[in-house]
Amino acid sequence: MASNESPTPQGAQDAPKRRLTIAVDAMGGDHAPAEVVKGAVEAARRLGVQVLLVGDGEPVQRELERLDTAGLAVQLVPSEGKVGDDEHPAVALRQKPRASVLVATHLVKEGKADALVTMGSTGAAMASSTILLGTLEGMDRPALGGPFLGLAPNTVVLDLGSSVDCRPGQLLGFAILGCVFARRVLGVENPRVALLSVGAEETKGNRQVRESLPLFRESGLNFVGNVEGHDLFTRKADVIICDGFVGNIVMKFSEGMGVALVNLLQGRLKDRLSPQEMEALMSQLWEVTHGTRRGGPLFGINGVVIVGHGASQAQDVAGAIEMAQRVV
Amino acid sequence: MASNESPTPQGAQDAPKRRLTIAVDAMGGDHAPAEVVKGAVEAARRLGVQVLLVGDGEPVQRELERLDTAGLAVQLVPSEGKVGDDEHPAVALRQKPRASVLVATHLVKEGKADALVTMGSTGAAMASSTILLGTLEGMDRPALGGPFLGLAPNTVVLDLGSSVDCRPGQLLGFAILGCVFARRVLGVENPRVALLSVGAEETKGNRQVRESLPLFRESGLNFVGNVEGHDLFTRKADVIICDGFVGNIVMKFSEGMGVALVNLLQGRLKDRLSPQEMEALMSQLWEVTHGTRRGGPLFGINGVVIVGHGASQAQDVAGAIEMAQRVV
Repeated sequence: MASNESPTPQGAQDAPKRRLTIAVDAMGGDHAPAEVVKGAVEAARRLGVQVLLVGDGEPVQRELERLDTAGLAVQLVPSEGKVGDDEHPAVALRQKPRASVLVATHLVKEGKADALVTMGSTGAAMASSTILLGTLEGMDRPALGGPFLGLAPNTVVLDLGSSVDCRPGQLLGFAILGCVFARRVLGVENPRVALLSVGAEETKGNRQVRESLPLFRESGLNFVGNVEGHDLFTRKADVIICDGFVGNIVMKFSEGMGVALVNLLQGRLKDRLSPQEMEALMSQLWEVTHGTRRGGPLFGINGVVIVGHGASQAQDVAGAIEMAQRVV
Repeated sequence: MASNESPTPQGAQDAPKRRLTIAVDAMGGDHAPAEVVKGAVEAARRLGVQVLLVGDGEPVQRELERLDTAGLAVQLVPSEGKVGDDEHPAVALRQKPRASVLVATHLVKEGKADALVTMGSTGAAMASSTILLGTLEGMDRPALGGPFLGLAPNTVVLDLGSSVDCRPGQLLGFAILGCVFARRVLGVENPRVALLSVGAEETKGNRQVRESLPLFRESGLNFVGNVEGHDLFTRKADVIICDGFVGNIVMKFSEGMGVALVNLLQGRLKDRLSPQEMEALMSQLWEVTHGTRRGGPLFGINGVVIVGHGASQAQDVAGAIEMAQRVV
């Protein structure tokens, strides 16, 4: 989001708008490079953005050749290797200085791209962007978050998995970032901030929440107190704060529930809806329960980095690129 | 569950089965006594159990008179006052020695009832049953849990909110209780136990999970490792363990999501389903996402205590009584 701070040279009102450029980690994710390349091409067509596909030359080129890219601003930037989910991010980045996520982050650092989108290891994206782009003052490390559910598209939740054990000060840092996002991206003027807990009463909550309460109350933020699990849908707060352990579990629970409900409803409605109607309804249900498939920003980084779900399909990749476009 | 251990005097094979007796806290819950009395009468009719309705004489009697109780084993046991959600449980119980939850727990202690069902303050139910019935060896305090989702009726999750900050030893205690429940009530022979975390890998998870892993591995339980949020639906484990902070948030999140989805689907399907079909589908959706409305047992108590949701309607109360019947 830092790129919002300084006007670009092309920012003069009468100059044509520079085309937005997104660096996409073509090697990241369970279905890379095929689905990533497909999603990137779809995004270039639909959103009119320029996409720099960063990945091993040969396989990415092969995927590109299968698709119709005529007239689209899609370009391959070669890199070597990738960082897997099972590797220690910092170690892997040292051993693979030309890994796709690093090369892509460099493009952002050098101003050749406005944002990075990756479906690869969250740890690698965090390490790479912390090292190359740096974190905002007061942030030890970035946080993951955003409007994580299609059912509640204007409620920002973080952290969703980057920091599993958090001190009160870290939670407050998340709240400040969430407010910036709510204001700048969602247009909420004075975002209401809440701590996710087990009851609205002040005495309820675990030690972490109880210790965070005074800090939040004195923060100058528009703090509205504790909210409960169902309040992720009730719009009692615009920014809901939890540690990455709770956030990640709730996010994945939502996805699992979406799948279970799609199965249940397919059985119940198969005699009532046409195949097309069923398809449309099921994909809407999938969408509203899998918000973060579309990618969430890394908060607290000097630059725009969107980390998508490892299992992303082409449409999810395109969605993450769209999220990057909105955030930039 | 302890009542399973010792055969009752009426247990001889040829003797007629003694009618199960459930003590119901008629004053507990947001819609008490009206909905509680209604649910209790419904349960007496449908399940053939005897119900002792414990509550303030006059209002409970008034509700009873509105209903047809001819031929049903429903009896009023007078008490004085109730413990509210906003009161400190232990203090309130000292100040109100004739409160409904205490009188009802006494009925279980004295063998006049086989189980206690309450929709009132969870803290009061825990305090009352800990004081009067006692906890099992090795348990500091009871835990809340059960098969908490209709979408995954054979997966036991605990703790759902009784202990928000847990040491590894407490989590292991929950696991042992969950296994007893899975074996005795759900008939699972060798229940698979998992810790709820943010990734299946051993290195993932917060400090609590990482510190609990070795203890679980050496416990002799059928421990299958860490599972993630979506695994509450995937049957990778029969017993899933988390602390009450995480469990309560996930449980309430599920309820909130159920409500949001019901709203979404009502709009989408109103031209496709008849009012009756819509009603049936929506109540099924409500049911599968609000598992714990039906009540979850307090684990680790020397006796059967079912704590239902404060917002329970009559059918939820009847469901909690049915749960008590199954557990006994």
